[in-house]
Amino acid sequence: MKTYLDCYLCLLRQGLTAVRRAGLDNQDQVTVINSVLQGLQEIEPGMTPPIIATHIHHVIREKTGNPDPYGELKELSTKRALALYPRLKALVEAADDPFETAVRLATAGNIIDFGPADEYDLGESVERMLSQPLAFNDIPALREAIEKAEWLLYLADNAGETVFDRLLIEQIKVPVYYAVKSGPILNDATAEDAIAAGIDKIAQIVDIGCDAMGTILKRCSEEFRQMYEEAEVIIAKGMAHYETLSSKGDRLFFLLQAKCDVVASDAGVPVKSLIVKRG
Amino acid sequence: MKTYLDCYLCLLRQGLTAVRRAGLDNQDQVTVINSVLQGLQEIEPGMTPPIIATHIHHVIREKTGNPDPYGELKELSTKRALALYPRLKALVEAADDPFETAVRLATAGNIIDFGPADEYDLGESVERMLSQPLAFNDIPALREAIEKAEWLLYLADNAGETVFDRLLIEQIKVPVYYAVKSGPILNDATAEDAIAAGIDKIAQIVDIGCDAMGTILKRCSEEFRQMYEEAEVIIAKGMAHYETLSSKGDRLFFLLQAKCDVVASDAGVPVKSLIVKRG
Repeated sequence: MKTYLDCYLCLLRQGLTAVRRAGLDNQDQVTVINSVLQGLQEIEPGMTPPIIATHIHHVIREKTGNPDPYGELKELSTKRALALYPRLKALVEAADDPFETAVRLATAGNIIDFGPADEYDLGESVERMLSQPLAFNDIPALREAIEKAEWLLYLADNAGETVFDRLLIEQIKVPVYYAVKSGPILNDATAEDAIAAGIDKIAQIVDIGCDAMGTILKRCSEEFRQMYEEAEVIIAKGMAHYETLSSKGDRLFFLLQAKCDVVASDAGVPVKSLIVKRG
Repeated sequence: MKTYLDCYLCLLRQGLTAVRRAGLDNQDQVTVINSVLQGLQEIEPGMTPPIIATHIHHVIREKTGNPDPYGELKELSTKRALALYPRLKALVEAADDPFETAVRLATAGNIIDFGPADEYDLGESVERMLSQPLAFNDIPALREAIEKAEWLLYLADNAGETVFDRLLIEQIKVPVYYAVKSGPILNDATAEDAIAAGIDKIAQIVDIGCDAMGTILKRCSEEFRQMYEEAEVIIAKGMAHYETLSSKGDRLFFLLQAKCDVVASDAGVPVKSLIVKRG
């Protein structure tokens, strides 16, 4: 997805939130925000919003000397999601169609995202996901693709959301490779976050080889790129994957909530829509 | 009032709204937004938000060749307010304290502002203004100051709001000089807008000598500056006057609604508060 002018506002807001969260004093906040403004001026055609957001978070990390301003929030997100896990697991097991319920819950967990907003309502998201029709419902195609595949690549999104991914992975019979960031960026999941959610017990955690948001293939490791090329089915969670990979073919299944006007409009759905869509 | 980092977001949003309203194509929108981003980087200590907003609107005017992108909206705002005028006039005349009711209504009209938001709810604003307590209520001091003065300077804010100012001016017994912008900037009132609201029948319309938002004295004409210096009482309508003049002394009475977080926080009141405050 290209970067729309409305993304500029969101990226600037993310920058402001992040410099405050990182505890910078006012003068340093101005310095960082100025480099965000400069970065926005240098946007070139073809740059997706996660490329710019990644740049912003790298600048903030450099200026603050704080490698992980979202660390505590990530821990808290995982704890909260784990507290819900037994109830959600029971829901899946009691469902007429456990796979569909698990897909819906994995998508519900995508509300845990400190990019488009500073807070989230997890309970509301779960209720909505279980009751609301999907704006795109490629669950049958996803089920069929998984049945035919020997293994599956699962592109993780955020810490805490990982617990919701676990519910879905538990319904998948083939081996799952769960791809995480090599280091902290916003609240994206790293190996540590995946392990805290219990993913290591049910999938093999793999590192994409960079700490950029979404999956910017040219920045990933050779090893990961090869795995990506070979995967028959790829589940891509969240907006950043939609933004970086949406043009990349029918092996991909995007599971996300359209949390901002721009992604919603790009996908042709109302904001807050629930999307399970084949690429 | 200084420019806070939160103002950057609002200024960028205003820029985006304005380039779209001006009907620029996408490439020209990017060009203008880039110069807005550049302008934000060049903010110096002491610059108030209206100085930057003025710069933004001047850039947009230059790039579009459209001297008045808000012209139609201003006309519509005046028409809508004039349609309400007879009912509001009757309210003032039936009130126990017509002066206070007129001050409240003049402040209600301050909701007509395309800076902090793209639309407004005039009916809601009138209801709120008539029923809600004022966060600052210097109406008694304003009444007393007017009674002692030989004449009064009234710094207009926006087109349409002018009709609400008329209700207040009609309650003022001394001559009123109604100061407007020398040319279009956002939806600020010009002489034409003031005349459309019927102000010319009850006050002398004066031109501040520039088309900058608020009152940036050093940009105003020598003639206006002299009038400003000599005025015993000055009614300053709206946020931009609060932002540009808030440190300037007790001749000033600010009548405004705190429509954004930054102004509300600077004034120490909740957002949407109604303010009648001596400088």
